[in-house]
Parts: sequence; C-alpha cells; structure tokens
Amino acid sequence: MIQLIELLAVISSATFGVLLARRSKLDFVGVFSLALMVAFGGGTLRDLFLDRHPLFWIKHAHYPVIVFVLALVTSFIPRLPASVSKVLYFPDALGLGLFSIVGADYALASGTSWFIAALLGVVTGTFGGVIGDVVCNEVPSLFRSAPLYATCSFVGCWLYILSEPIPISEPLRLVAAISAVVILRLSAIHWNIRLPEFQED
Amino acid sequence: MIQLIELLAVISSATFGVLLARRSKLDFVGVFSLALMVAFGGGTLRDLFLDRHPLFWIKHAHYPVIVFVLALVTSFIPRLPASVSKVLYFPDALGLGLFSIVGADYALASGTSWFIAALLGVVTGTFGGVIGDVVCNEVPSLFRSAPLYATCSFVGCWLYILSEPIPISEPLRLVAAISAVVILRLSAIHWNIRLPEFQED
Amino acid sequence: MIQLIELLAVISSATFGVLLARRSKLDFVGVFSLALMVAFGGGTLRDLFLDRHPLFWIKHAHYPVIVFVLALVTSFIPRLPASVSKVLYFPDALGLGLFSIVGADYALASGTSWFIAALLGVVTGTFGGVIGDVVCNEVPSLFRSAPLYATCSFVGCWLYILSEPIPISEPLRLVAAISAVVILRLSAIHWNIRLPEFQED
Repeated sequence: MIQLIELLAVISSATFGVLLARRSKLDFVGVFSLALMVAFGGGTLRDLFLDRHPLFWIKHAHYPVIVFVLALVTSFIPRLPASVSKVLYFPDALGLGLFSIVGADYALASGTSWFIAALLGVVTGTFGGVIGDVVCNEVPSLFRSAPLYATCSFVGCWLYILSEPIPISEPLRLVAAISAVVILRLSAIHWNIRLPEFQED
Repeated sequence: MIQLIELLAVISSATFGVLLARRSKLDFVGVFSLALMVAFGGGTLRDLFLDRHPLFWIKHAHYPVIVFVLALVTSFIPRLPASVSKVLYFPDALGLGLFSIVGADYALASGTSWFIAALLGVVTGTFGGVIGDVVCNEVPSLFRSAPLYATCSFVGCWLYILSEPIPISEPLRLVAAISAVVILRLSAIHWNIRLPEFQED
Repeated sequence: MIQLIELLAVISSATFGVLLARRSKLDFVGVFSLALMVAFGGGTLRDLFLDRHPLFWIKHAHYPVIVFVLALVTSFIPRLPASVSKVLYFPDALGLGLFSIVGADYALASGTSWFIAALLGVVTGTFGGVIGDVVCNEVPSLFRSAPLYATCSFVGCWLYILSEPIPISEPLRLVAAISAVVILRLSAIHWNIRLPEFQED
C-alpha cells in the first residue's frame, strides 16, 4: 500500500511540474526536466543529506520512466483544462503527507535527532516544489503567505515522531501521521488558513 | 585523447561561464565563480548522485586552476569580441558530447538502469549551463525553445548504451557516440531545429 | 573558543537570513527556511563535496534548534530596526573568517590540493548567502561589485595554507588566519574597497 501511495505521490508531483513548466512556456525538455525536479528534488536532497545510496529514484528505476511517459503523454494535449490543478489537490496533499512521513522515518533510522528528522521530513515533502519555483525564476510560493503547506508537514512529522512510545503497530502509526498531514492541508485550503506575512520597508 | 577532449570541454564550458558573467555585469569573483559552476556543475551533480568520490574536479586538481587562469586572463581584455560566442559553438558541442557520454558511462559502471544512465548523461552534459542561468536569474535557456541541446545529448547517450552488444572496440564506440552528439548539435544550430514551445494561458 | 565563534557564526548568518526573508515579505516558514539556508548552505556543500558525514548541522543537532528559536523570537518583533544590519557587520565578518578557515582546514584534512582547499574555504564562508539570494530571486550580491567579501576569504585561506611550515601552534595559526579575514573584510567595508565591474553590451 505504501508503494501505491508513493507511486501516486511521484505521479502527482510530476504532474504539478508539468503544469508549472507549461505555464512558463517551456518546451518538452523543459517540461520533462521540471517534472523530474519537482517529483524527485526533495527526496534527492534527503538522500544526499543522510548519505543514503543509491538515491531512491536510481533504486526504483521505473520512477523516472513514469515521469517521462507522463510528460510525453501530456504533450499531446494542446491545452490542459484549468480544472486539472483543482483535481490535483488531493493527490498533492497525499504526496506531501507520504513524502514527509517517509522522510522523517528515514532520518530517524539514520540516527538523527528528532528536530532534524522533522526538518528532513519537511524537506522531502516540499523541496521539489521549491526547486521548481527557483528554476522558473519565481520566489518560492512555499515561503510566501499561502494556505499552510510546510507547516502541515512539520506538524505531521512531530506527531509521527512523538507517537513512537504509543503501543500501536508501525503501519497504523505511519497511516495516522500521513492522514494528519492530508487533513491539515485540505483544511488549510478549504478555510484558507495562512501564516501572516512580514511587512518591512 | 579523451583527456584532451575533456580538457577542451572544461575550457569551453568555463569560457561560456565567463561570457555569461560579463553579460550580467559581475566582478572578478562573479566571473570566476560562474565559470566554475558552468564547467563543473553537471559533473558534480553526477558524482554526488552516484556517490563517486573524490569529485572529478577534486581528483583532477588542475582543472580549477585552469578555470582560474582563464577567468584572470580574460579579465585583462576589456571587451570580448562578439564573435567569441560563435567560435565557441564547436568546442561547446564537443564538450556536450564528451561530458554526456562519459556521464552515461560512469552511471552504467555504477550499475544504474539504462534510462537513468541516459538521464545522468544529459545532466552531466547540460546542468552546468542550467545552474549558470539560474544564478544569473534567467529562466534556463535549456528549457525554452531553442536549437536542440539536451535532446542531442539524450539521443547520443541512447546510441552509446544500445550499441553495447555491437562487437566494436570500446574507444571506437565512445568516439562514435560523442560524434553523434556533436553532429546532431551542429545540425540543430545550422538548420535551427527546435522543439515546439507550449502555449498556455 | 572555536565552538563559541562557530556558534556566533551560525547565529549571525541566521540573522542575516531572517533580515533577507523579511525584506522579501515571506511568512514564518519562509523566514525559518531562509535562515537555515544562509546559516548551513555553505557548510553543507563543503560536507557533500568532501563526503563528510554526518553533515555538520546533523552532527551538532542543536544548531537548527537555535536557528528555529531565533526565527521565532524575531517574529514577535513587528519591525526590525534598520540599525540591526549595521551591528551585524562584525559577527558577519567573524563568521566569514571562521567558516572559511575551518572549511579550508577540513578540505586539507581530506587530502585535497591547496587550491581546492582555498576554494572550499570560500564556498563554506560565502555560499549560504549566495543560496539565499538565488532563492529570493536576486542576482547574488557576492558576484556584483561590492566591498570585497569572497576575496577576503580567499586571501585568508591562502595565508592559513601557506603558513603551515611556520613553527607556531595550530590554534594560533587558525586565529591569525581568521583575524586576517575579519580585518580585510572590515577594511573593505570601511574604505569601500571593491573590484571593478565588467562592462559589456
């Protein structure tokens, strides 16, 4: 089941990358590259920081192929319906949850402190999007005032880490933490919950 | 001979970095930094992704010195002739070919899948330029519609990978694949072959 | 004492990150992320390039916590006084000096050449700021004409490396090289010493 969710996460991240690239008027190489960066950027940083080799997309060698096919297939659709980005909210939230909790879990397994595990969870869940924004020459939307995103990931990672002593099965604990991230994220979008922006002159 | 081409590749990439930096009105530190990033960016990512240590420019410690001397010498030329970028097309295409095929070769040697080897070949051949563009605050020209660049690298890597069963000597196979990239790239420039750009609103 | 200066270096880099983020009108997630990148960016690159694991901020797990508290505490100050950036010149120069010399020292210990040790010293001392600028969508100020910054780091690293045969104690040699960077940097600010900018059309 985790494998299935991870696959969904890769697919939805890659789709976001495709949409971002097409908004920036890139060609196919740009669309494919951006889809790769958004889908694999966060996990690659996590693997490099923790010295985990082979990197997850080199180990699961079919992931880049899936992204390639996705970029290729969507290329034949001249104009993506605007509703695509709305439909993607759910898989994106799922991806955020799964990548974050798996990231925190890998970090703990490498013997990091709790705080660092939570940080690496957030990096895994969110940095693909940051890289995509930076490459497309936009200030990352993650850092601007917008419905909570990194915060949902951070809170979910702490729930996962702190629930360790609770005597429930590991898979259940994983699913609970992922669900918490997803519910937080969907709530933040629905009620437009955001952090205040700093005003400086 | 490979060493000679690699040296040429480092020199021509670094020269591109110098030209890019001077167009962005940077000072000597900026010129040298950008030359380093363009010349070593792609190969560094490849080495980090494949966990190859020491990195190629730490191992071949004279490469950074060459880039330094190049940045220094060109600093005394107040205004580079516009024709420099035209003269550079050939060494740049050679660099693209060599870096790409060597990158794919290293990846295969590390036991990656074919598709990933081709991807890492493209990363090695092209990412120095992408990093240079991002740092100079431009949307990478690699991703926009322009004469084929990454595509030439990708095709050449596949030729190299798929020709493995053919009973010819390894050096010949290397040279053939590099030549294919160079010829593709020069043809793309000459006939202005490019991928279509996506139009989205 | 080195531990104390390193702590000061992390704190002052993080404070610069906070100021940069607030000028770019980011929210708390952005402020914290940028503070992390500016404080840890250079050292992380150095550790990845030299294959040093665990990364320094994973090993010294209290550093990210300090940055978090700093970002949190400054969030309650609605408007930071403009004089903060002036007061920061000294700890920033101290941070530049310490990070640079420690970086060069780590590189030498890994067996790199002198030139590469000096380069990695500069990367360690300056790249946090470069990453911060790139993320905030500005051409890195490091690369533009401004009072000498990377140059002070480079000179100090060479002083440290070349003074190795001099029969003085290692701590004294470290302190002398760090002081050289600090004095150079403060002099560059005071007398507005800068490299010329290239003019190209």
